[in-house]
Amino acid sequence: MGAVTKAPPVLARVYRGPHVESAHRGSLAVADEKGRLLQGCGDTALPVYARSAAKPFQAMPLLLAGGEKRFRLSDAEIALMCASHGGEPEHVRLARELLRRGGFRPEDLECGAHAPMHEASARELVRRGEKPTVLHNNCSGKHAGLLLACQALELPHAGYTDPGHPLQRRIRSLLARNADIPESSITVAVDGCNLPVFRLPLSALATAYARLVAGRQPGEESSAAAVRARLVRAMLKRPDMVAGTGRFTTDFMKAGRGRWIGKEGAEGVYAVAVLPRGKKGKAMGLVFKLEDGSARPRDAVTLAALERLGVLPLEIRRALAAYAEPVVLNARGAEVGRIEADVPIGATGRRRGGR
Amino acid sequence: MGAVTKAPPVLARVYRGPHVESAHRGSLAVADEKGRLLQGCGDTALPVYARSAAKPFQAMPLLLAGGEKRFRLSDAEIALMCASHGGEPEHVRLARELLRRGGFRPEDLECGAHAPMHEASARELVRRGEKPTVLHNNCSGKHAGLLLACQALELPHAGYTDPGHPLQRRIRSLLARNADIPESSITVAVDGCNLPVFRLPLSALATAYARLVAGRQPGEESSAAAVRARLVRAMLKRPDMVAGTGRFTTDFMKAGRGRWIGKEGAEGVYAVAVLPRGKKGKAMGLVFKLEDGSARPRDAVTLAALERLGVLPLEIRRALAAYAEPVVLNARGAEVGRIEADVPIGATGRRRGGR
Repeated sequence: MGAVTKAPPVLARVYRGPHVESAHRGSLAVADEKGRLLQGCGDTALPVYARSAAKPFQAMPLLLAGGEKRFRLSDAEIALMCASHGGEPEHVRLARELLRRGGFRPEDLECGAHAPMHEASARELVRRGEKPTVLHNNCSGKHAGLLLACQALELPHAGYTDPGHPLQRRIRSLLARNADIPESSITVAVDGCNLPVFRLPLSALATAYARLVAGRQPGEESSAAAVRARLVRAMLKRPDMVAGTGRFTTDFMKAGRGRWIGKEGAEGVYAVAVLPRGKKGKAMGLVFKLEDGSARPRDAVTLAALERLGVLPLEIRRALAAYAEPVVLNARGAEVGRIEADVPIGATGRRRGGR
Repeated sequence: MGAVTKAPPVLARVYRGPHVESAHRGSLAVADEKGRLLQGCGDTALPVYARSAAKPFQAMPLLLAGGEKRFRLSDAEIALMCASHGGEPEHVRLARELLRRGGFRPEDLECGAHAPMHEASARELVRRGEKPTVLHNNCSGKHAGLLLACQALELPHAGYTDPGHPLQRRIRSLLARNADIPESSITVAVDGCNLPVFRLPLSALATAYARLVAGRQPGEESSAAAVRARLVRAMLKRPDMVAGTGRFTTDFMKAGRGRWIGKEGAEGVYAVAVLPRGKKGKAMGLVFKLEDGSARPRDAVTLAALERLGVLPLEIRRALAAYAEPVVLNARGAEVGRIEADVPIGATGRRRGGR
């Protein structure tokens, strides 16, 4: 009765007192911009739904069509298009402002409404007796950007979330090109915000992230590389717009001071692009997917992986300690456990201890 | 890089469109009241923290000390002591009433406060500008019962949550006796509500659940069996007090009409006691622990396991279809996926399909 099955490795253990109570498994891939797998564990070829980790690629058509100039987009606005934002007042204000630039109204957004991810903002809505709107949806910036892209590309905006809409086909094509895989190997389902969600191998998504921070590729138009650089610059300048107050992605980018960008996706996905440093520095994309879809160990796993790769300076690790070694509190605020992440990659490839 | 490790089997798959997006693994044990393992998958000897699945055992000292008569306890009140309740108005009222019976005040509860698990009740608190109290804590009924137990047993109530408090030692001893294991093989940490949480082998917890619905055991005092029967009767009569509105445990017991009791625990624990039916019927305890600690697939896994065991009538399966085959909705309310549970136990022991 001790049946066991093949499984990806445990990337994080949740302790209660001295014993492991729960564990999170996952697969992780590290690649360069040429599609070379540098490191990995679990199933690096696992097809995963990119979820919100696709957002920087979903913002590309607008910028490629000259949208930055046409709509006078700021860093904050471009960052918001790549965001899973908290629905904080400033996020909502900017999303509304983006719509206004193209003469759109909130009703044009096809993302649906949900309560702000930022808890204090959610409570404030309830306190005022108001309902969440489409603008509070963590994807409202992305959707607003897609409406502007329709305008810039002279495409009908109605039905912009349909997989067959020309804008969606263009996004899929751009993602495939950046991931260095044929378009046909990306399958599509429906995301939480009603947009097509893209399913591609983990290592291919890691390649696409490496490419976000790499220069112009052979045979590539200069505009493609310029747009990637523009997106990364916006995210680095306004990490507060990419996630929000008290969120790992924001604090992680702030602490990195230009070293990396990070983007979470639902169901336990996280993607990092490590920028090349110095003349011989190399771009690197790191993506993992927690098998169970949990967000709980995501931040700690991200930092553990970067530590293993030798790109996480000690002072940054210390500044992000609350994310790297989260504690489990009970209802009285007492510390009753902790989460420990470890990723079996890197120089040794060995895992610290078994389970 | 395709490293795999030993792991319990997948018990539930989360689909997005036609593909698996996430999966939940777990171990499951089915035992009778004598400690015989009837079925299982994964690691049936896995030590697990019982979490709130220990609640019926935590209510035993009070009843064994004659608390029902002394404090004139109703079915609803006894059920609330075994509850992870929703913090709905009636739960809060009853918890306060329980305290009153012993002359206790909310300040005597050492469980800490958290927002009601029942979302509408939580929203209502925010709307009124009120903060959650200890009475809203899903464990307030259990804690109130422990205070009454201190009084009935003439024990000091201060520090009743300390592992060394005589009441806690008594609970541990009762759990060990019901689980048919030495007391020393139960280790203790701190639960979310500040009480000692008990760690014991999965199959032993299944035995304890089987015993909840079994008769008097050889060499056992009749009061022990009577108290078990009383607890089960209260849970069966007032399933609305054991969890709450829209909760699986409540609907599961209602639909079962006396066939079983069910109790969830945090971190992916669920326990069921199947009552003996007919003259030759047998008591059965079923407990599982999801490795990742997720509550998401818990209801579906419970029903899938009972189906495999052949004790889930089709009409009940149909009545609980929303729990058995949950759908994944997006922010627009569109169905974008589903959860499918399957448990590799039962007559064939084979699993339907691979991953």
